[in-house]
Amino acid sequence: MDPRLQSLQQRLQHVFSDPKLLQRAVTHRSFSADHNERLEFLGDSVLNLAVAGLLYQRLGALAEGDLSRTRANLVKQDTLHQLALGLDLPNVLRLGEGETRSGGQQRPSILADALEALLGAVFVDAGYGPAEALVHRLFQGVEINPQMQAMGKDPKTGLQEWLQGRKMKVPTYRVVATTGAAHRQTFDVECEIPELGLTERGIGGSRRAGEQAAAAAMLLTLKATQK
Amino acid sequence: MDPRLQSLQQRLQHVFSDPKLLQRAVTHRSFSADHNERLEFLGDSVLNLAVAGLLYQRLGALAEGDLSRTRANLVKQDTLHQLALGLDLPNVLRLGEGETRSGGQQRPSILADALEALLGAVFVDAGYGPAEALVHRLFQGVEINPQMQAMGKDPKTGLQEWLQGRKMKVPTYRVVATTGAAHRQTFDVECEIPELGLTERGIGGSRRAGEQAAAAAMLLTLKATQK
Repeated sequence: MDPRLQSLQQRLQHVFSDPKLLQRAVTHRSFSADHNERLEFLGDSVLNLAVAGLLYQRLGALAEGDLSRTRANLVKQDTLHQLALGLDLPNVLRLGEGETRSGGQQRPSILADALEALLGAVFVDAGYGPAEALVHRLFQGVEINPQMQAMGKDPKTGLQEWLQGRKMKVPTYRVVATTGAAHRQTFDVECEIPELGLTERGIGGSRRAGEQAAAAAMLLTLKATQK
Repeated sequence: MDPRLQSLQQRLQHVFSDPKLLQRAVTHRSFSADHNERLEFLGDSVLNLAVAGLLYQRLGALAEGDLSRTRANLVKQDTLHQLALGLDLPNVLRLGEGETRSGGQQRPSILADALEALLGAVFVDAGYGPAEALVHRLFQGVEINPQMQAMGKDPKTGLQEWLQGRKMKVPTYRVVATTGAAHRQTFDVECEIPELGLTERGIGGSRRAGEQAAAAAMLLTLKATQK
């Protein structure tokens, strides 16, 4: 086996019974007729179910529509592209000459599709369990931002209204950490409701985004506590 | 357990470890806050993956886009509605008074949603394997009509052109059986290419639809043979 596929296997933590599936999963249609699109079809469904299961368990307070919105936000191309970079897929992809010349191995859509094809390949090779486990490992480091319709587009406003409706004071927000280079900082924000003894945290690409994420987390906690 | 849920369990061929999941799956939001919508969210993904797996195995000749189109045609509300009727769901559904008065237990969307919720309930109760097996049992009697882009909207024309391109005669079509009451007949049509010694069959709600289905099956066979 190509040593690059060997090390991809290690990163996936899955040893293929049928290594042809692994090779096919990283083969773009520009390279060969034996390409990854049918595996991508399967992998897309594996991804949707595995993430649905994850959210169903973790976000017990969320209604169906909110679960759908949260999933759509999680499995979008941008996220899959990042995960593909984490697996070093640009160096493993098999692309036709023209596609390689035009930088296809860095194209987000090609990388996201190959990631899905890998999920499909693990599913065909070993069944749903190992494929689901791979999705859960991949998404371990991905922030889950619950997308709730009830709070509209602005969790901070929603939280403030929720508290005012119960005669409570407005929450306090505090940046507890900033990480990353100056032009691409991440803000880790804490939201506190002293009267309830509750604190929640959120992360965002700006102070305001971090506050919104923290407010969303707090709203979820309040909703779950009320049940 | 309610005897109606008992017999539903038998029809599903699945005995629930957690019978509350079964009850929740047949509970519409008009009946109780503990309703089936979150399970439906899961079940929809279970259905998509299980049918994707089925088509991936059975239709080895189809490209990704055709697999997607074929699946969309299979899991549409009309099919799920019919499957729900087969499970006698109208007599098991738990609906609020208003919804019952307005005939909600016969509404296709409510029945299709409950069917998906049942798939989600089996998935939560016992994992993907049993849920997938249930989908495959349910779809055993459902005709799979491959939806192929290459042949456009008219498989008969596509087949004729394919044969003419190879200097062969046009195929013959023959109705081999009609079943069902007069206003809702089903036509079982055979398509034959004597020169190749091939026959394929298709089923449709009209003679013409049966012929198109038979032509589609024949095109698939020809495409598979060519590989």
